[in-house]
Amino acid sequence: MPSISDKGKAMPASPIRKLVPYSEEAKRKGRKVYHLNIGQPDIPTPEVALNAIRNFNLKVIEYSHSAGNETYRRKLAAFYQKAGINIDHTEMLVTTGGSEAILFALMSCVNPGEEVITPEPFYANYNGFATTAGIKIVPVTSYITEDFALPPIAEIEKKITSKTKGIIVCNPNNPTGYLYSKEELLQLREIVKKHDLFLFSDEAYREFCYDGAEHFSAMNLEGIDNNVIMLDSVSKRYSECGVRIGMLISKNKEVISAALKFAQARLSPPGLGQIVGEASIETPPEYFKEVNREYTARRNYMVEALNKIQGVYCPKPKGAFYTVVKLPVDDADKFAQWLLEDFEFNNQTVMVAPASGFYSTPGYGKNEVRIAYVLKIEDLKKAMEILAEALKVYPGRV
Amino acid sequence: MPSISDKGKAMPASPIRKLVPYSEEAKRKGRKVYHLNIGQPDIPTPEVALNAIRNFNLKVIEYSHSAGNETYRRKLAAFYQKAGINIDHTEMLVTTGGSEAILFALMSCVNPGEEVITPEPFYANYNGFATTAGIKIVPVTSYITEDFALPPIAEIEKKITSKTKGIIVCNPNNPTGYLYSKEELLQLREIVKKHDLFLFSDEAYREFCYDGAEHFSAMNLEGIDNNVIMLDSVSKRYSECGVRIGMLISKNKEVISAALKFAQARLSPPGLGQIVGEASIETPPEYFKEVNREYTARRNYMVEALNKIQGVYCPKPKGAFYTVVKLPVDDADKFAQWLLEDFEFNNQTVMVAPASGFYSTPGYGKNEVRIAYVLKIEDLKKAMEILAEALKVYPGRV
Repeated sequence: MPSISDKGKAMPASPIRKLVPYSEEAKRKGRKVYHLNIGQPDIPTPEVALNAIRNFNLKVIEYSHSAGNETYRRKLAAFYQKAGINIDHTEMLVTTGGSEAILFALMSCVNPGEEVITPEPFYANYNGFATTAGIKIVPVTSYITEDFALPPIAEIEKKITSKTKGIIVCNPNNPTGYLYSKEELLQLREIVKKHDLFLFSDEAYREFCYDGAEHFSAMNLEGIDNNVIMLDSVSKRYSECGVRIGMLISKNKEVISAALKFAQARLSPPGLGQIVGEASIETPPEYFKEVNREYTARRNYMVEALNKIQGVYCPKPKGAFYTVVKLPVDDADKFAQWLLEDFEFNNQTVMVAPASGFYSTPGYGKNEVRIAYVLKIEDLKKAMEILAEALKVYPGRV
Repeated sequence: MPSISDKGKAMPASPIRKLVPYSEEAKRKGRKVYHLNIGQPDIPTPEVALNAIRNFNLKVIEYSHSAGNETYRRKLAAFYQKAGINIDHTEMLVTTGGSEAILFALMSCVNPGEEVITPEPFYANYNGFATTAGIKIVPVTSYITEDFALPPIAEIEKKITSKTKGIIVCNPNNPTGYLYSKEELLQLREIVKKHDLFLFSDEAYREFCYDGAEHFSAMNLEGIDNNVIMLDSVSKRYSECGVRIGMLISKNKEVISAALKFAQARLSPPGLGQIVGEASIETPPEYFKEVNREYTARRNYMVEALNKIQGVYCPKPKGAFYTVVKLPVDDADKFAQWLLEDFEFNNQTVMVAPASGFYSTPGYGKNEVRIAYVLKIEDLKKAMEILAEALKVYPGRV
């Protein structure tokens, strides 16, 4: 029997999915499980997008252009221009989800053995894409005591070596919900310019900014047009995670041209997803206002409820729909498993994502979990109540 | 400006797409271009699949399981069992097109620097996936004089080194249309067993076998269950190229488990595509009979028409919908470009794919082109007439 590859062995299992067998077991036992562990919004997809599917009237589902349908890319360019990001349809590729945009960007820009710096905790799948590309993610820790603000520029600079090829930031951040300010981005600009690095800016949660805070895109950092690659997705914006449509955007023509060759090898991004994505451009502004109101209310409720529990600390993040919370537990991995295996409150329990999977520094995040507030307020209330009860009786409470 | 990666530089541009600017220019001049260059069938997608899109009634387009929806995988298992391939739903992943299945298989099994042998001419995108994975494709030449049969086993064995990790075959073959016989597959079985190699079997054209010939799947080679990985796709089977749904299938649990980790990193395969794929399992047998009749008629017409042109030789392939044809020209790349740039017959021309892009041995395939018979017979007739006229006046005729 031939042996699998070293990459096949080294690929990290998803930190979120490793608990799935326990949640399935809990459900088999008849327990209701509230899912705070995944970023699957419950918000309905816009009607205009659903109608585009129902009205599908082609006879053959054909390949599209490898960079995505031109009609779609032109509408996307107008969409971004309206959001203050000045790009045209030749400066982007439509990809199979934001996932493929990240992978193509790393493959196109970073050699095996080279390094990319990112603030930790970070989106755990960056590890998977880095393993695929044979590159190394170098973490620079952000702290819950600072509400996960950008680490001091001196700390980032300490991590730069001759192997460093870029910095990747997710803004607003998954998993912390932190929204980087314009000032923080200007600091990143300096370091990127000084060391001539790529800046990979994952902006999949751009519309999810609260309390009137404005998102500042890395695409608007002056003088580093050739350094910035923006990664985007329709998944969260329109609650269309399943269509698998993302975008890779850059003013750097060499990068677009290299990424297009990776795109040509896989022929085309999903055709039906592109139809949905193109129709979604027409989503009325009220949709976003309503979604923003809903998430603001959920966040406000949740942050308050969490901070009322003794020993818990939850920052009040300004973006996305996640927060990383400190819990009074010995080990959040054990706690998350215990919630599913051994705990129930009125035959109900909750599922959370242990934060350790979002850090790459060993031992970090041991008393933190990521919570996604993707449930209706009434469900969120029940989930918070269950969590409070669980923390009262958890044997590993500290 | 930071430099792009070596892989970004090394990625091969698609040999089919490099002529696209010339065909666009020809169309701008008002010329009708008959496309014999791409494998985009004109056959309608089955009604049962189109109806599944029109009847879409979910409110949120959610992520699916990373391995694909279980309901779909269970139906796929039944579909394969009916075709004589005995697998269950845990022995497969649903992927984003056959493309991703190939990439995941190579990534999971082959280390950077290692080698995979394949008969040439071969599907050109294997080069792209190999570059992505950092591995080397080692060609063993098959010849038009043998109608592109499997090269003698001794020739394949000569290519095996300490770096060889597997063999990849496409059956029926793209680009040659050659259908490997059971005897040829048994020869591959011997060599795979003897050297403990992976056998990657790309069977995306399984249903496209003519003259009553039967397809023999590599999955049915006895005693090498842990060596065989089947790569499949709905693209051609149901004329659904745009849905981007493929499958990676293996009895080797280590391979499935490694591939699943790559699949988890990219979250899920396209959701709408899976709905279409699942519905397509119910395609009535008459659909396939009709499609087979249509392609048989096209092939018969085309092979005869080509062989009537002086200096042309076209084998009569038993599978897929391609053929590699020998032309009396100095350089098929120049000829293909000339057809688009400088030739017209009643304001019409044809686009063909130069075969050089399907060989990796330099200089091979210089007087060959791949022709896809994906046009209606009446269009195919016009295309053949135009090609015959072109060959009369092409300045580089030999």
